Amino acid sequence: MPSTLLSVRDLRFLLYDWLDVTRLTERPRYAEHSRDTFDAVLELAERVATERFAPHNRAADLTEPTFDGRRVRTLPQVKAALDVFAETGLLAASLDASVGGMQLPHAVSAACFAWFQAANVSTAAYPFLTLGNANLLLAYGSTEQVDTWVRPMVRGRFFGTMCLSEPQAGSSLADITTRAERQDDGTYRLFGTKMWISGGDHELAENIVHLVLARIPGGPPGVKGISLFIVPKVLLDDGGALGARNDVVLVGLNHKMGYRGTTNTLLNFGDGVHRPDGHPGAVGYLVGEPHQGLAQMFHMMNEARIGVGAGATALGYTGYLKSLAYARQRPQGRPVADKDPTAPQLPIVAHADVKRMLLAQKSYVEGALALVLYCGRLLDEQNTAPAEADRERARLLLDMLTPIVKSWPAQWCLAANDLAIQVHGGAGYTRDHDVEQHWRDNRLNPIHEGTHGIQALDLLGRKATMRGGAGLALLVETIRATVTRAWKAEGEAAELAARLGGALDRVTLVTRRLWDTGDPQMALANASVYLEAVGHVVVAWMWLEQLLAVEAAGGAGDGPDVAFHAGKRQAARYFFRYELPRTGPQFDLLESLDRTTLEMRDDWF
Amino acid sequence: MPSTLLSVRDLRFLLYDWLDVTRLTERPRYAEHSRDTFDAVLELAERVATERFAPHNRAADLTEPTFDGRRVRTLPQVKAALDVFAETGLLAASLDASVGGMQLPHAVSAACFAWFQAANVSTAAYPFLTLGNANLLLAYGSTEQVDTWVRPMVRGRFFGTMCLSEPQAGSSLADITTRAERQDDGTYRLFGTKMWISGGDHELAENIVHLVLARIPGGPPGVKGISLFIVPKVLLDDGGALGARNDVVLVGLNHKMGYRGTTNTLLNFGDGVHRPDGHPGAVGYLVGEPHQGLAQMFHMMNEARIGVGAGATALGYTGYLKSLAYARQRPQGRPVADKDPTAPQLPIVAHADVKRMLLAQKSYVEGALALVLYCGRLLDEQNTAPAEADRERARLLLDMLTPIVKSWPAQWCLAANDLAIQVHGGAGYTRDHDVEQHWRDNRLNPIHEGTHGIQALDLLGRKATMRGGAGLALLVETIRATVTRAWKAEGEAAELAARLGGALDRVTLVTRRLWDTGDPQMALANASVYLEAVGHVVVAWMWLEQLLAVEAAGGAGDGPDVAFHAGKRQAARYFFRYELPRTGPQFDLLESLDRTTLEMRDDWF
Repeated sequence: MPSTLLSVRDLRFLLYDWLDVTRLTERPRYAEHSRDTFDAVLELAERVATERFAPHNRAADLTEPTFDGRRVRTLPQVKAALDVFAETGLLAASLDASVGGMQLPHAVSAACFAWFQAANVSTAAYPFLTLGNANLLLAYGSTEQVDTWVRPMVRGRFFGTMCLSEPQAGSSLADITTRAERQDDGTYRLFGTKMWISGGDHELAENIVHLVLARIPGGPPGVKGISLFIVPKVLLDDGGALGARNDVVLVGLNHKMGYRGTTNTLLNFGDGVHRPDGHPGAVGYLVGEPHQGLAQMFHMMNEARIGVGAGATALGYTGYLKSLAYARQRPQGRPVADKDPTAPQLPIVAHADVKRMLLAQKSYVEGALALVLYCGRLLDEQNTAPAEADRERARLLLDMLTPIVKSWPAQWCLAANDLAIQVHGGAGYTRDHDVEQHWRDNRLNPIHEGTHGIQALDLLGRKATMRGGAGLALLVETIRATVTRAWKAEGEAAELAARLGGALDRVTLVTRRLWDTGDPQMALANASVYLEAVGHVVVAWMWLEQLLAVEAAGGAGDGPDVAFHAGKRQAARYFFRYELPRTGPQFDLLESLDRTTLEMRDDWF
Repeated sequence: MPSTLLSVRDLRFLLYDWLDVTRLTERPRYAEHSRDTFDAVLELAERVATERFAPHNRAADLTEPTFDGRRVRTLPQVKAALDVFAETGLLAASLDASVGGMQLPHAVSAACFAWFQAANVSTAAYPFLTLGNANLLLAYGSTEQVDTWVRPMVRGRFFGTMCLSEPQAGSSLADITTRAERQDDGTYRLFGTKMWISGGDHELAENIVHLVLARIPGGPPGVKGISLFIVPKVLLDDGGALGARNDVVLVGLNHKMGYRGTTNTLLNFGDGVHRPDGHPGAVGYLVGEPHQGLAQMFHMMNEARIGVGAGATALGYTGYLKSLAYARQRPQGRPVADKDPTAPQLPIVAHADVKRMLLAQKSYVEGALALVLYCGRLLDEQNTAPAEADRERARLLLDMLTPIVKSWPAQWCLAANDLAIQVHGGAGYTRDHDVEQHWRDNRLNPIHEGTHGIQALDLLGRKATMRGGAGLALLVETIRATVTRAWKAEGEAAELAARLGGALDRVTLVTRRLWDTGDPQMALANASVYLEAVGHVVVAWMWLEQLLAVEAAGGAGDGPDVAFHAGKRQAARYFFRYELPRTGPQFDLLESLDRTTLEMRDDWF
């Protein structure tokens, strides 16, 4: 019986038939790997996710972490699962062998991690955050910081967090006020309050490594005066052993409707309750140079945002597979043209409207997964392509795609979860089935790691204009190359290529028209609509790519392959017929330089 | 401080300035009423909803009813609120004075009830179901049945349920198997299991009156052999006093993600555990004639489905008002064109993207409320218009609009709740704010009382074709009359009228094209897309109607009126610019007679 978490067949198609990740093993970084090692690690991920993470997904939702004023208690299964996860070494799947990593391509490690996100997104959040933290320190930390903090994280002894938001500063990081005062010994003392910190306190690991954005007094105002610090929950003594508690105090837990198994915290730094040594403040260690905090954070955002998109995709994917399984076994109703009540009922998968809801989900989740893995592949190109020009192209293209790979799955795989509930009918909103939880869990993804609106400003306000529009030009050129290939392939691919080409022209024209106004307020007024339209064009491109990969695989397949390929074709058709046309009115609106929202006054609401 | 449940100003605008419900008092049925009595009862509803229902909305969500195998326990505040509700007489707001009702127009009583749905939809569900039950018995029950069962329901002593679904029969009522065996004394004994029964057991009232669909052995198969029965939880003795327990057994409670304060039950009828008199089976009383059960149910569906639409609207509305209040007080970020970090932050309502999310919500919830009250007004016309032809027109138009007034608010006011969360940012998915609960509660509305897909088949398969298309022709003609009026009004109304006229033409053409195929399977393949497109056209009509009402009110308003009217204009613009154009690609798809879903095979998924 195939998994209802993800589709092994689809992962293999995307990684091997389409992205051809096996060829990466020709590069020195991946020389130790082969298709066999990729398959082995993917199977390991599936097995651990299925056996250790999925079984307590509902229990973690029903039994939130609690805080009695002294300790945070979590479901025992969470720690048990994370211990197994650490033993497998999967946390460091993509990291350098020099720090204990497997040195896998990102495309493969993202696929591995998606198994855990599909199985139990709230337990998977702990290693997700830890990995993000480790990546940042690997990029900007000193050798000593890597040895002290990253190595224990890689082994699962320490977990990590990202402490950005404060009560008055969420989307607007310019407004953070946490301050870091330099001490004579070169360390800092931090004072401030951090909000929405996932994994901010727990007893799942020996220590928690907080990465904290804060201001060094005297620095410039706004985002230019933000620095990055390591602030551990527990200080280490000179020999590296766990010592006194640092002055990081859990004020309370936030209670959410989703990701309920992940502790989400309000933390006070330097409020004096846990003063370790008579000096006030939480002990912190500067990462890199002062005032570079935001740039450092942004540099690792690409990876974190692909990760959020991957999580949203995984939740959408498992919801799709579960609703498909339900639709195949639930009898209800009869053909519209022949309602003989004495005939047996049909499984609901036979009804056109249910097929519509399943095809929509399939087109969203498989389209999103393709985009996530494509971005993982770009990360690999950026890091390991032999030619500098190719690395640079990959970096630029990934910069363009980052707001899309974060927001598109968050929006549309949430929509997939909504449809998964609908396929279940009344059963879908009971807690007897998983789909309602997936929907609640997935609702966080359009908000955390930068809201939809922030991604939209990033895409249209920053990415589309950076380097004189070079990023946008590269994206358009790259999609155009697929269109041209599809055009030459003739048949259905050529027909879809024509439609994608038309939509692509509109992306270019609309972007120019918006910025030709010379008025950023006008240009950005409908940035969210722009993000959605460009997102649909990008995913249509992913579908055309998949269609071409199917046609390339062509007649070679056996029975199951024929059905698999037919499903890919039909989902591609669905996306081009039902989804891509949505962009027409969106481009029309953008082209009209609509001022409806700008002209709305607060007192008119 | 204005309410964050509903807008009194908007309700007055819709009821008085637009629907002119005061003129109904010229009719005999409403002769005792006046604008003053309407205002008084609306104020009463607001006050009781605010003081008695809203305060325990979250508590009812957090503390679900429990069943210990003997008794169902509910939060004490639920019963306290319902007792006050019963004392006000609001349950019978629209019912005849002869049974203790207030004899209010449905447009007014729907507005009253919306306050309770906005305040606490799960507590409001008990009177909602009781009223639906009472209406059905008033239409089809004998005088004795009305005296025995309806009068205690009107006074709040008994509550009512609707028992339709069974484990194997949800959307497909043809498949119910509960059987009702006639006894020598003319009563029946029922045997079977009913699923998803809201309010199916509790101790909130002295008795529960179940209305149960069942088959009398020997009747025709399918929907033509279904009859309707009264099956009380507690039997009455000859003097009408509460007697022995009937053989209706609570098997268990369903646990949902929303409406958590409403008990939702699996009930066994006639399983012998509570056999009252040695004869097996649950004692039931036939309502009307045998085999008329489904027709009877459908006759009262119009009202129940308006009620579901009203509930969805109320949840959307309160979410909108709460997100607006949040946006006005939450400072975050600065103008896109001037990001001086030393300047104070703006309230987020000042950002274009937040205004977009608020305008979208406003256009959905006020559009939906207009549609709900318009349908209430049609119910009043159907019941009290002096000329039979007008009553008949109202009935036909309401038949057409019923699947839309049920499904459109369920879809788009749920979308409004999603946006309300987004406006709140990270705070929106915590349980510290109401909006996440509204979103969960609202997710039930696209499923219960007939799923979206069932409403779509009803609209395109039944309503659009009934009486040779007379219903659709009437709908188009009625909308066209508004278009013509707006056209003559010139200015902005004329511009919007032209767009609505264009969309209306497509409704007619597309419907004809679909049925001209002569192939019901093809015609209905994309019924859901048809439902969504026609729904948007209908709500655009509601916005054009509101715009005309604003223009008619014109220069007369004082300060607050000017702002209120400007808001209505802007929301109308928003709907026509951002929403109505969505229908273009939907009509294109329908016109293309797309077969993507029909051709999809189960083994291709």
